[in-house]
Amino acid sequence: MNLASLTIKALHQHWVSNQLSAVDITEYYLSAIGAANPELNAWTTITASRARQNAEKLDKQRDAGNLCGPLAAIPYAVKNLFDVKDEVTLAGAELFSQRQAALEDAWAIQQLNRSGAILTGMLNMDAYAYGFTTENSHYGACRNPLDMTRIAGGSSGGSAAAVAAGLTHFSLGTDTNGSIRVPASLCGVFGLKPTFGRLSRRGSHPFVASLDHIGPLARHVEDLAVVYDQLQGHDPGDRFQSDHPVNPVSAQLGQQKKTLRVAVLGGYFTQWADDHARAVTEKVARALGADHEVELVDAELARSAAFLLTASEGGSHYLNALRDMPERFEANSRERLLAGCMLPASWPMQAQRFREHFTRQILAHFEKFDLLIAPATPCAATVIGQQSIEIQGNSLPTKASMGMLAQPLSFVGLPVCTAPVRTDNGLSIGVQLIAAPYQEATTLEAAWRLEQNNVTLKQTF
Amino acid sequence: MNLASLTIKALHQHWVSNQLSAVDITEYYLSAIGAANPELNAWTTITASRARQNAEKLDKQRDAGNLCGPLAAIPYAVKNLFDVKDEVTLAGAELFSQRQAALEDAWAIQQLNRSGAILTGMLNMDAYAYGFTTENSHYGACRNPLDMTRIAGGSSGGSAAAVAAGLTHFSLGTDTNGSIRVPASLCGVFGLKPTFGRLSRRGSHPFVASLDHIGPLARHVEDLAVVYDQLQGHDPGDRFQSDHPVNPVSAQLGQQKKTLRVAVLGGYFTQWADDHARAVTEKVARALGADHEVELVDAELARSAAFLLTASEGGSHYLNALRDMPERFEANSRERLLAGCMLPASWPMQAQRFREHFTRQILAHFEKFDLLIAPATPCAATVIGQQSIEIQGNSLPTKASMGMLAQPLSFVGLPVCTAPVRTDNGLSIGVQLIAAPYQEATTLEAAWRLEQNNVTLKQTF
Repeated sequence: MNLASLTIKALHQHWVSNQLSAVDITEYYLSAIGAANPELNAWTTITASRARQNAEKLDKQRDAGNLCGPLAAIPYAVKNLFDVKDEVTLAGAELFSQRQAALEDAWAIQQLNRSGAILTGMLNMDAYAYGFTTENSHYGACRNPLDMTRIAGGSSGGSAAAVAAGLTHFSLGTDTNGSIRVPASLCGVFGLKPTFGRLSRRGSHPFVASLDHIGPLARHVEDLAVVYDQLQGHDPGDRFQSDHPVNPVSAQLGQQKKTLRVAVLGGYFTQWADDHARAVTEKVARALGADHEVELVDAELARSAAFLLTASEGGSHYLNALRDMPERFEANSRERLLAGCMLPASWPMQAQRFREHFTRQILAHFEKFDLLIAPATPCAATVIGQQSIEIQGNSLPTKASMGMLAQPLSFVGLPVCTAPVRTDNGLSIGVQLIAAPYQEATTLEAAWRLEQNNVTLKQTF
Repeated sequence: MNLASLTIKALHQHWVSNQLSAVDITEYYLSAIGAANPELNAWTTITASRARQNAEKLDKQRDAGNLCGPLAAIPYAVKNLFDVKDEVTLAGAELFSQRQAALEDAWAIQQLNRSGAILTGMLNMDAYAYGFTTENSHYGACRNPLDMTRIAGGSSGGSAAAVAAGLTHFSLGTDTNGSIRVPASLCGVFGLKPTFGRLSRRGSHPFVASLDHIGPLARHVEDLAVVYDQLQGHDPGDRFQSDHPVNPVSAQLGQQKKTLRVAVLGGYFTQWADDHARAVTEKVARALGADHEVELVDAELARSAAFLLTASEGGSHYLNALRDMPERFEANSRERLLAGCMLPASWPMQAQRFREHFTRQILAHFEKFDLLIAPATPCAATVIGQQSIEIQGNSLPTKASMGMLAQPLSFVGLPVCTAPVRTDNGLSIGVQLIAAPYQEATTLEAAWRLEQNNVTLKQTF
């Protein structure tokens, strides 16, 4: 049996009913990862002995008749910026390769531990989470399982590639400007960037405190929802987390019969989409019955403001290291981090002020619509090393531009589920399903309907 | 009868029992203000007709047997950065003299309206609330009632002088780096800077959003507490307000019998205090039974960080105006606001990060002590125009240095009540009574005990 063809619930049920042991499942995946990863380059650390110990413990608990969580016996992996006890948190950066191992698991991993999930390792990413391609100059480029000559997208490239390759049922990534949505789009998997402040970020290496989100990636919407539910919960240790009440969503999928009021984002989001990206968005619009188009007139400014915040907050975070050991920084990022530190102080402050204005602008649309849709990337995955993309006659730099349709939305912290759609040229582009703050259930419901109607890309193993 | 000799409760009782009408009280104070203000220069706007209308209405309500609030018939005035309906909010700046009148009262004024207090006008301050002397280059220096050749302190100089002169029972000020505590110290009145986020700031002209506080000034601790209680309340329109529950404090005064565990702040707070400031602090320490000294090792860094945040946030707030009409800025502030805009972005970000560190450092002391004490100003009021102060052999610039003992404490948002003590040279220096977050009741209890024991300065009229 190919385990990767099962949903999380189905695999968990095989384990509960004793058809498979957690040890079997773990060995199956460790073996698959061992075979595929040297070429794929998604895992930077494989936590084999931890996984085996967990698996044995879970099997013993089950055999003793003890209750286990809904993710018991499900292997997963995390972007290498989450703290994993006794492992070095790289955050994609050679700079951190010598630092002390983490003393405890990140809060999200602790939640998944309690649910019985089995950690198989830590995944490749752009250095510092600053990039959209996962062409990591120290740890190598992560490849795209849809076409191994192409990029996986970033910065959570390993998280998307690992899921797309069938080597894990789900993964955790982070999204500051698009870092879950871009690789999910390019690798052909689902990704959820929840509302800003929704999930605790404690124990994840920060990039831009005022923009960072954590979230899951998976091949099925139900899987995404099941994992998201396990990640919910109040963490008094994360001062950025909002006190919005927990709202379990997985049991709600498909239960709502009401028609969603859907509009397509026009203007900027159409202008900077190639024909493939436009085609997949139209396909999703038709499937969801979207018959309106709305425009966010300040979307381009929002992207610029997100860039300013990213460069200055990200830069400030690394300021001491930039002073002490500039030679150890990834060449792609050193200058832009330094430049960010030296921006005039008024620029990020004006950007934060504009953020409130832009938030009001976009929230007004949710009085008329439950969901807004837009492509997650301007185009499908480019070939590794390709420096530019062609969008409607304009040549743009690949590394900076892959996130340009994602950035304005994370800037205001809205929940977005990315649903992958097959393009005519056999690749994938995700469509962002965007809801009002804390309406994660709406984005997942829309994704679930698309999946049920075979609009989204299906991977077969 | 000299009404200024009464407490708020006593004056209110005279009105309730029909011994005085609100109209009588209002005319008494309008006349006193009219006589004293040309020299004192505390009021920049006298809202006489509004006050008279309010007074007539209150008298009618009383005569009709209707319930009235605890501040009914009590006149007061506010720093001219609070919005007052139909008046121009100056924020001390000529720059704003032509702008549209406010459409509604600030939230704090609305609260006081409901309590029956009568607004007599708006008070002088440093331009933009950026200064510690209220030597306003456009509206003139506010004088100190203890010695009319001397400064009132700032930036809420008018708020302290108006109270000290017996022209109002209480006033509202704001405190970003010491702007309530410094003038209260120099004019010889009590001032309360509540915990950051405690009171709604809606409708007050902002200076530094991440440091601004509003608070009351009065001649008696009971008055201060009664007014503070009326200012408490949740305002959904102020996103900076914390959701800490309302805690009325005026009824608690003198009810607690427990000994307060008090420590004196040493190091920086002694080093930068002249002999008078040291003497008043020792007097308060003896009266409160303080037998420990603690040191905040990073107090000087905290002051620098507060300066960086002030210059950069304050500057960014005024960036467009600095570009469009630099000639209309007060010369004392133009260059430092412009310089603030151009600080490297990483500086205020590092300052915010340090703020968390310094907060932890100071909170640790509240495990052992209920109250920390320190002088509010390095010395007593200087002569108007005096450019430097002499502190233990060091010559420091007056305008920048009057707040140096207040700044490190507002930086971490702790509640502070300033209690005025007469100095040997017949002036006043306040002592800061500093408690843990949201323990306003402790600071007021300590101030009340000092007042009961005749440690604090008493003004007689």
